[in-house]
Amino acid sequence: MDTLRWNNDEGIVELIDQTRLPLEVSYIKCTSYVEIANAIKDMQVRGAPAIGVAAAFGMVLAAKELKERNTSDVYASIKAAKEVLAQTRPTAVNLFWALSRMDRKLEEVKEKDDNTIYMTLLAEANAIMVEDLEMNKKMGQYALELIPDKARILTHCNAGGLATAGYGTALGVIRAAYEAGKGIQVWVDETRPLLQGARLTAWELAADGIPATLICDNMAGYLMQKGLVDLVVVGADRIAANGDVANKIGTYSVAVLAKEHKVPFYVAAPTSTIDLEIATGADIPIEERPGNEIRFVFGQQIAPKDIPVFNPSFDVTPNHLVSAIITDQGLFTKCYKESLRRQFGGILK
Amino acid sequence: MDTLRWNNDEGIVELIDQTRLPLEVSYIKCTSYVEIANAIKDMQVRGAPAIGVAAAFGMVLAAKELKERNTSDVYASIKAAKEVLAQTRPTAVNLFWALSRMDRKLEEVKEKDDNTIYMTLLAEANAIMVEDLEMNKKMGQYALELIPDKARILTHCNAGGLATAGYGTALGVIRAAYEAGKGIQVWVDETRPLLQGARLTAWELAADGIPATLICDNMAGYLMQKGLVDLVVVGADRIAANGDVANKIGTYSVAVLAKEHKVPFYVAAPTSTIDLEIATGADIPIEERPGNEIRFVFGQQIAPKDIPVFNPSFDVTPNHLVSAIITDQGLFTKCYKESLRRQFGGILK
Repeated sequence: MDTLRWNNDEGIVELIDQTRLPLEVSYIKCTSYVEIANAIKDMQVRGAPAIGVAAAFGMVLAAKELKERNTSDVYASIKAAKEVLAQTRPTAVNLFWALSRMDRKLEEVKEKDDNTIYMTLLAEANAIMVEDLEMNKKMGQYALELIPDKARILTHCNAGGLATAGYGTALGVIRAAYEAGKGIQVWVDETRPLLQGARLTAWELAADGIPATLICDNMAGYLMQKGLVDLVVVGADRIAANGDVANKIGTYSVAVLAKEHKVPFYVAAPTSTIDLEIATGADIPIEERPGNEIRFVFGQQIAPKDIPVFNPSFDVTPNHLVSAIITDQGLFTKCYKESLRRQFGGILK
Repeated sequence: MDTLRWNNDEGIVELIDQTRLPLEVSYIKCTSYVEIANAIKDMQVRGAPAIGVAAAFGMVLAAKELKERNTSDVYASIKAAKEVLAQTRPTAVNLFWALSRMDRKLEEVKEKDDNTIYMTLLAEANAIMVEDLEMNKKMGQYALELIPDKARILTHCNAGGLATAGYGTALGVIRAAYEAGKGIQVWVDETRPLLQGARLTAWELAADGIPATLICDNMAGYLMQKGLVDLVVVGADRIAANGDVANKIGTYSVAVLAKEHKVPFYVAAPTSTIDLEIATGADIPIEERPGNEIRFVFGQQIAPKDIPVFNPSFDVTPNHLVSAIITDQGLFTKCYKESLRRQFGGILK
């Protein structure tokens, strides 16, 4: 099951429509960068790393469209497409990271012919996708030392294969522990309003045969109070230079509960999620999404139609609540400001 | 809008069907105690005080049925009906409190004719209903000193008119503050899985014109982190002798978050919710409900059909997280074990 794939015969991007899962498994064919931008905005593709990969292929589609139309100024037009893709969602930094990486390649070949530009961008997008999968596998291996045998692991939202090029960040950690025979069990927060836990994480874990139990978000505290959670692992949409973590709304509440109950709280994220340009989580833009995401579930009304709604899509967990950050470059456990800068300063410009 | 009413012409109980709100406002006519028991089990009537009132009228219906059928042993048959009503839901003590109160009346008149038994029970059920409304109004007045002007108040679940004979416990406190011109605003936790906040509290507050904004349960921590919550007020299903509070699942998480952010956490509950027979919250039975309450919303599937689910319906907030208990007998702020015993020991046997 691919989250996203490049169909080389047709020269298009195919995305699994995550808004329809688990009721229906269907793929969307994107033939233009605008379709990619809309799929990101509408969350048909979501998850920080997957958004980055999708946006990279959006630039490939832009190059392909322009090449086929013999546009006079391919370079400027791809730049314009990049800006459209950058406007889709504000919080996950992987989007901007992937677009910058594509942009650097574009700069390298901007004097070349249209086909070279296109082939260069395609190769770079493919590299981003392949590397994302590799980073997830590495995180899984680094995290093994953090996961006790028979651990009961709570996760929030979906940081799985569907949120990445495959394997997953937080779910990659869980998959690696499962594959290592640790006999783990997973508590899955349903993750309102869009239910990425109930719809996506539950579906992924069931498909892999990993023991998983679904709960509502408001039950996590009760489970911890009863001693039923050994650790928490979540993904991230952006990690500031000081280790503050933006992730799906509700993550902060889980982190506070974990602290109260002395449960370790881990964040799994690849290099592409770390934003050394942002000093602290206070500077991370938090997306607000439409109120009807709360008032309706799969089109079913569940609240008065005109009730005011507040729908922040992310929150920020301060670094002091994070027991460790699991990355493809290893584990970081404290003094995030120094350790992240030392490890990633040379990689991330 | 009555939560529950006695239709004296027909000798039946009419209940608003809370499972259909806010999509549809319809009343169920209960002609037998079995129908009342089923309405409680299926949560067509819910909320600790309302369950107590409904169960009391269930005993009235039992007496009426038996009287009309000329049953030989009315007394034993009403006792049997009481047992059926007591089996409906385990956590809210108001149910047992109301049934015990009805039982004491039954004992007083058990040698009398069937009609006297029936009329006596009817008068007692009516008294329970009227007193519940009065207790809610008193709580609202006692709580006024706790509510600052322009307070932004967060509440969880529905402890409103729909959960009581009218006015509400937590929402009674909110109503009283609003009526006193305090210019309050309310954050409404949607309260998964059954969405009593989104469906019932939002609907009640909108009907009264009290400014209210709906959020998902996992957003409360973010709001507190941003300094947008001045106090929390919730209802209760049972308060142990030491002040531990059983309430709708998710209440405990809100209380932990409130502590972390130094936000006062208040519980509003009438005398009928206090259980001096139970030493601590650890002894309060916590109901688990069917998994499909989580997997489906208004019949709409939202998760894999066969995913295991854990669905505890309540949790226990330890007394040290409770800033004050608001009752119809006044406010209690500390040393709950001593203060509750002193105030309620004589009232509750």
